[in-house]
Amino acid sequence: MNLNKDGFVKSSLFLISSLVRGVAMSKSAGCCKRFLHYAFDYETPKTLVIPSLGVGFVFRFTQFLVVMYVVGYVCVVQKAYQDTDTVISTVTTKVKGFAFTNTSDTEPRFWDVADYIIPPQGDHSFFVLTNMVVTPKQVQSRCPELPSPSTICVDDCNCVEGHSDPRGNGIQTGLCENYSTTARTCEVLSWCPLEIDTKLPEHALLAAAENFTVLIKNSITYPKFNFHRRNILPHVNSSYLKRCEFSRLTDPHCPIFRLKDIVSEAGEDFQDMAVKGGILGILIDWSCDLDWWAGECLPKYSFRRLDNKHPVNNVAPGYNFRFAKYYKTADGEETRTLIKAYGIRFDVIVFGTAGRFSIVPTIVNLGAALSFLSLVPVVADWFLVTCSRKRDLYSRHKTTHLTEDADSASVSMGTTYGTQ
Amino acid sequence: MNLNKDGFVKSSLFLISSLVRGVAMSKSAGCCKRFLHYAFDYETPKTLVIPSLGVGFVFRFTQFLVVMYVVGYVCVVQKAYQDTDTVISTVTTKVKGFAFTNTSDTEPRFWDVADYIIPPQGDHSFFVLTNMVVTPKQVQSRCPELPSPSTICVDDCNCVEGHSDPRGNGIQTGLCENYSTTARTCEVLSWCPLEIDTKLPEHALLAAAENFTVLIKNSITYPKFNFHRRNILPHVNSSYLKRCEFSRLTDPHCPIFRLKDIVSEAGEDFQDMAVKGGILGILIDWSCDLDWWAGECLPKYSFRRLDNKHPVNNVAPGYNFRFAKYYKTADGEETRTLIKAYGIRFDVIVFGTAGRFSIVPTIVNLGAALSFLSLVPVVADWFLVTCSRKRDLYSRHKTTHLTEDADSASVSMGTTYGTQ
Amino acid sequence: MNLNKDGFVKSSLFLISSLVRGVAMSKSAGCCKRFLHYAFDYETPKTLVIPSLGVGFVFRFTQFLVVMYVVGYVCVVQKAYQDTDTVISTVTTKVKGFAFTNTSDTEPRFWDVADYIIPPQGDHSFFVLTNMVVTPKQVQSRCPELPSPSTICVDDCNCVEGHSDPRGNGIQTGLCENYSTTARTCEVLSWCPLEIDTKLPEHALLAAAENFTVLIKNSITYPKFNFHRRNILPHVNSSYLKRCEFSRLTDPHCPIFRLKDIVSEAGEDFQDMAVKGGILGILIDWSCDLDWWAGECLPKYSFRRLDNKHPVNNVAPGYNFRFAKYYKTADGEETRTLIKAYGIRFDVIVFGTAGRFSIVPTIVNLGAALSFLSLVPVVADWFLVTCSRKRDLYSRHKTTHLTEDADSASVSMGTTYGTQ
Repeated sequence: MNLNKDGFVKSSLFLISSLVRGVAMSKSAGCCKRFLHYAFDYETPKTLVIPSLGVGFVFRFTQFLVVMYVVGYVCVVQKAYQDTDTVISTVTTKVKGFAFTNTSDTEPRFWDVADYIIPPQGDHSFFVLTNMVVTPKQVQSRCPELPSPSTICVDDCNCVEGHSDPRGNGIQTGLCENYSTTARTCEVLSWCPLEIDTKLPEHALLAAAENFTVLIKNSITYPKFNFHRRNILPHVNSSYLKRCEFSRLTDPHCPIFRLKDIVSEAGEDFQDMAVKGGILGILIDWSCDLDWWAGECLPKYSFRRLDNKHPVNNVAPGYNFRFAKYYKTADGEETRTLIKAYGIRFDVIVFGTAGRFSIVPTIVNLGAALSFLSLVPVVADWFLVTCSRKRDLYSRHKTTHLTEDADSASVSMGTTYGTQ
Repeated sequence: MNLNKDGFVKSSLFLISSLVRGVAMSKSAGCCKRFLHYAFDYETPKTLVIPSLGVGFVFRFTQFLVVMYVVGYVCVVQKAYQDTDTVISTVTTKVKGFAFTNTSDTEPRFWDVADYIIPPQGDHSFFVLTNMVVTPKQVQSRCPELPSPSTICVDDCNCVEGHSDPRGNGIQTGLCENYSTTARTCEVLSWCPLEIDTKLPEHALLAAAENFTVLIKNSITYPKFNFHRRNILPHVNSSYLKRCEFSRLTDPHCPIFRLKDIVSEAGEDFQDMAVKGGILGILIDWSCDLDWWAGECLPKYSFRRLDNKHPVNNVAPGYNFRFAKYYKTADGEETRTLIKAYGIRFDVIVFGTAGRFSIVPTIVNLGAALSFLSLVPVVADWFLVTCSRKRDLYSRHKTTHLTEDADSASVSMGTTYGTQ
Repeated sequence: MNLNKDGFVKSSLFLISSLVRGVAMSKSAGCCKRFLHYAFDYETPKTLVIPSLGVGFVFRFTQFLVVMYVVGYVCVVQKAYQDTDTVISTVTTKVKGFAFTNTSDTEPRFWDVADYIIPPQGDHSFFVLTNMVVTPKQVQSRCPELPSPSTICVDDCNCVEGHSDPRGNGIQTGLCENYSTTARTCEVLSWCPLEIDTKLPEHALLAAAENFTVLIKNSITYPKFNFHRRNILPHVNSSYLKRCEFSRLTDPHCPIFRLKDIVSEAGEDFQDMAVKGGILGILIDWSCDLDWWAGECLPKYSFRRLDNKHPVNNVAPGYNFRFAKYYKTADGEETRTLIKAYGIRFDVIVFGTAGRFSIVPTIVNLGAALSFLSLVPVVADWFLVTCSRKRDLYSRHKTTHLTEDADSASVSMGTTYGTQ
């Protein structure tokens, strides 16, 4: 090997070649040469070019299929060249509206936001009171239990002092008292009078709540891409926001929702749902393609009832909870108004995954696709030796068989070949 | 090349072949032929078939190892053929139970859900009050500070008007007052009387809370797979739900939990934890394999204390917060009852990843595995030329060495070969 | 094929070889032999070794580039060998501090935690009251509306009984009353007196809130790796925690934050923000490399204002909500104090992804990289036949062309070769 003649080995090779040249002049040249051969001799497969349009076409077509798969499915449909991140979000909600109730059961009453929104803070989950069982003026005292098979008594012997039935309402005092003119029940120590929650109004008290509106402000972040966005879009102006109302067709990006619309979009009836309460999901999908050639990143709203409506196996259907307002009477005694509140809990659920071109998933998926390209010659070779017309000729030239008793250097194909 | 004989080139090839036929008849046939050769000549490696059971076995065994790895580890253990999605969940909780307290410190009192559950809404995080320091009848006024090195004074000179010590309880008025018969402290402007929170009851006030039960309703969604599920399973009927109670062995799918069981499953003692409070995680794992051949998707419950129990470096151990109930006296003055509430906050944490067969990760992982298959011949070739008995023979036939001074067409192996 | 000589086929091969030997002795030996050939004959490409430093260098250099890419970018920068998991976290917050307000509008008042923290529980989101519009002594009654173009009237004819204007404050009674000496407005049924929220104090009422501190306790879990960690680090001792305060430079791991510092780190002015309120994100990044050779897993704090400060298109700028404290007068009438609370909501947002070495992503990424290694010979071959000096010689020896009319066994290159 005449290194001096390797004129194309330019600047970057200068170091190596001068080292080699230097070494070549020394006496250990033989050893070095062997290393150079080991490291830089290039071993390449011998190939046979077959001028067959059939085989060539099978080869190119299989290649084409793999490339189509990569471009079509992996890149376009699945966007496998993207790195992904999950959304981080903050939600503020603000309900507006008031109502006036005047039923036979309750006193006339005016309701505003501070009365029916619990908790008042307006974060991602808010509850709109629509129906209620109010038990006013409860005080810590003794009263006869509500009549039920386990509480009805004839005399004091039927009641055990200190006994507390998990299904009851208090701790028994051991006395049997008149609950009504017809029934006697065990007396209990409790907040009295006891709540009678079977008398739930059949029509929701705050039926007018269906016309309340809620403004949802949602800011999101994709921390990996340092991408921030609000659901109040930049091109939307202030006067539009004052009068708009979400509508999938005409105002799909207005962040103000009428409660009735939310419920009906979820396929439910507001008045129905308002009686026993329920949970309604306001789902905001921020799935976005953040590559510059993709369109804008916009929120997509959808609505779904999250609790089961008429399930077979339901304990405590609907949605309700008890809370109390505590008062003190003039003489310092604590009294409370117990409210069993039925209503709709709106949960704003923000989700989404953003994708943006990234080199690593691209490489991984390209790599995987290239692996399939390396399958292409396997397919073409199989076609060559089994299906093509001149398969015998092709495989005779392509493949050399060593004979079984190849101890001598003879091969099955050509004896003039390979002698040394 | 006789294109007319290529009878197998069927309908899909018709266009090309007729094009070619047409072109071949024209005068620019030579140029076109060259292009056809360039595009459709198939170049395939010449191969040597070696009938050695040893080398063949090494080859097949290495192939077998790679296939085993793909099937066994990637597919079965890691399910790398699946696309994954993260759970979205809604939680409703409802606590049941009441208690009666009658200690020397406090008045006898009956407690129900509206008294001890804060906040009352019952979402994914609820707090059960178990112990408390109550400071009733606080009014905005002046009172001497609690005695501490920085608040004890001898006369008014020790107290600075308007000074507010971050560790104190109010704004100093500049006066030095009698706190008790033995101690004098600076007077402060504050809610008086001041809270003395060092007198925390040693035994939890609401020790009975351990027998309260909580019903957890949890609906989950995997949006990518449009998969919805509740933790109240479809086959569970209503009468079972009325009497059941979660038990890992007998009732693993009952959604009603006794607080004591939750705490003891987390390795803690309820009475211990109730004194100073703490945070307990109810973890619901919805990790699921959604492929149809996999089993049902069921929630797995586990429980873990989330705050540190006896850490060395803890400020404010346990869990407590202060809240107040506000009253107005008959003459319109505002008064409040300050409650430092100790208790257990139960956080329902829902997590999980669902996987379902998807073509892209399958392709990616198959591709990666196929890449390893392309390593197999490297291993087998190395074995062939270094370890097999007839290695000299094999490598003589496999490899042709160009001689170093290969300017002439001679090669090191066979002179009868390759003459030009 | 003399199987008896295959001495290297050891114990693991014993079964196969004895089977083969047994079969070979039987009469169906021919068929079996054919199967053995089919399964275990090893087909390997014939190769040509080219002692060209140029081509060898191109080959090695391309290999080196691929390996560099794998090591440098995929492994070091992107850590593509890791499996990842998303954080699950619990947060407890506890605010400390008190303030005294004495403005011309309101009575002197002392504020402590129970007064200004809403909700009081201290979970991942807490609200610090900084400004407010208080409307005390509201009762359900009738009063004239606030003057506005739609509510001003001349006589009763202008007011419609039962009409409720969504922008108004109650249900009209149909009467026109004197609002002031100069204006007459329609009377409404509502909580009276009505709130006049235009008189928001220009300077925040609780300006002193900037010196309040908040202790954030955060426990995280990576369930896939069974990894638990708190933001109070193990080496931090109790006395340090009593006096420390977060500072990016001097105390980056102290979990106690001064509200003013949080706001100014987010690039805002506390006094500015306190007037109209806002939402401030306390972001805790737990992104960790959990491999043992990586450093410790530590939380990184950052702060960002989450609502828009001066947006063009904003309804309800800042952050506020209404809540009420309910009282009962001596004669049982319900009265309330309505508070429109302005303040800063602090959202503790915990996020992060942990990675740990895992075999599957490693294999996938290695596989992809190996696919690129299989591209290296393509590059080197291209260089060989187009750029190297002796390209004619090399390609003559590397490639054999079948002639077009190769029906006879003649090949274009050497007629002495391949006769059978």
